[in-house]
Amino acid sequence: AQIALERDYEAQRESDTRYRVLMEASREAYVFVSVHDGRIVEGNTAAGALLGRRRDDLPEAGLSELCEPKRKGDLIETLRTQALSDRPVPVDALVRHGKEPVSLVPTIFRSAGERMLLVRIEPLSEGKVSQDALS
Amino acid sequence: AQIALERDYEAQRESDTRYRVLMEASREAYVFVSVHDGRIVEGNTAAGALLGRRRDDLPEAGLSELCEPKRKGDLIETLRTQALSDRPVPVDALVRHGKEPVSLVPTIFRSAGERMLLVRIEPLSEGKVSQDALS
Repeated sequence: AQIALERDYEAQRESDTRYRVLMEASREAYVFVSVHDGRIVEGNTAAGALLGRRRDDLPEAGLSELCEPKRKGDLIETLRTQALSDRPVPVDALVRHGKEPVSLVPTIFRSAGERMLLVRIEPLSEGKVSQDALS
Repeated sequence: AQIALERDYEAQRESDTRYRVLMEASREAYVFVSVHDGRIVEGNTAAGALLGRRRDDLPEAGLSELCEPKRKGDLIETLRTQALSDRPVPVDALVRHGKEPVSLVPTIFRSAGERMLLVRIEPLSEGKVSQDALS
């Protein structure tokens, strides 16, 4: 059993390494957010660049401190609703720093008994048609 | 020490979950490849779609069985060289299934004492100028 546990532990370490390499290699901007308090648990450098923060300063920031939803309502609740919807649509927001319009694409999952959101942050280039969740 | 170990183990499980969620949420196509034998360790659904395999059938396939480099030479060795270069450039290849031209963007890292490549597979849309490593 000890050997099995160690093997399992080793496999976990490998996936932790892959997780970190993948986060940083990704050109897409991602943040993991706790549904409970709306705080960012971790984000990648691409997300930091879009949100106007260094990557290491993202944890503990509330996502709604950094992004203002275009429509009224609680940002985390709107993301959660979209993530659970059968036909989810991106949620439009404005980055508070720099006023860049972005589209937030949420995925919801459970980790260590807590609900978490993975949010992809896409710059809304001009010309691109917005598909806001609330329009 | 036992408690610290358990806490560490729990953190590892969380990052394993995040790794899996991130792989599948990504619209970019990624495969992890062992430098030692050139075999895919894991890939996401986007990579499977590009390479003409189901995601779960990617592991154990050799990357060069699925992609043919445009220039002569060993594909894994070329990817490794580019990943280690100061000014890496993508490596052009042709997917054997479907003949789609793609650009391979490698990142190299070490995991459990073994060198691994994370390879982003980008479809080379027409019009897009290729920056092949060997041209």
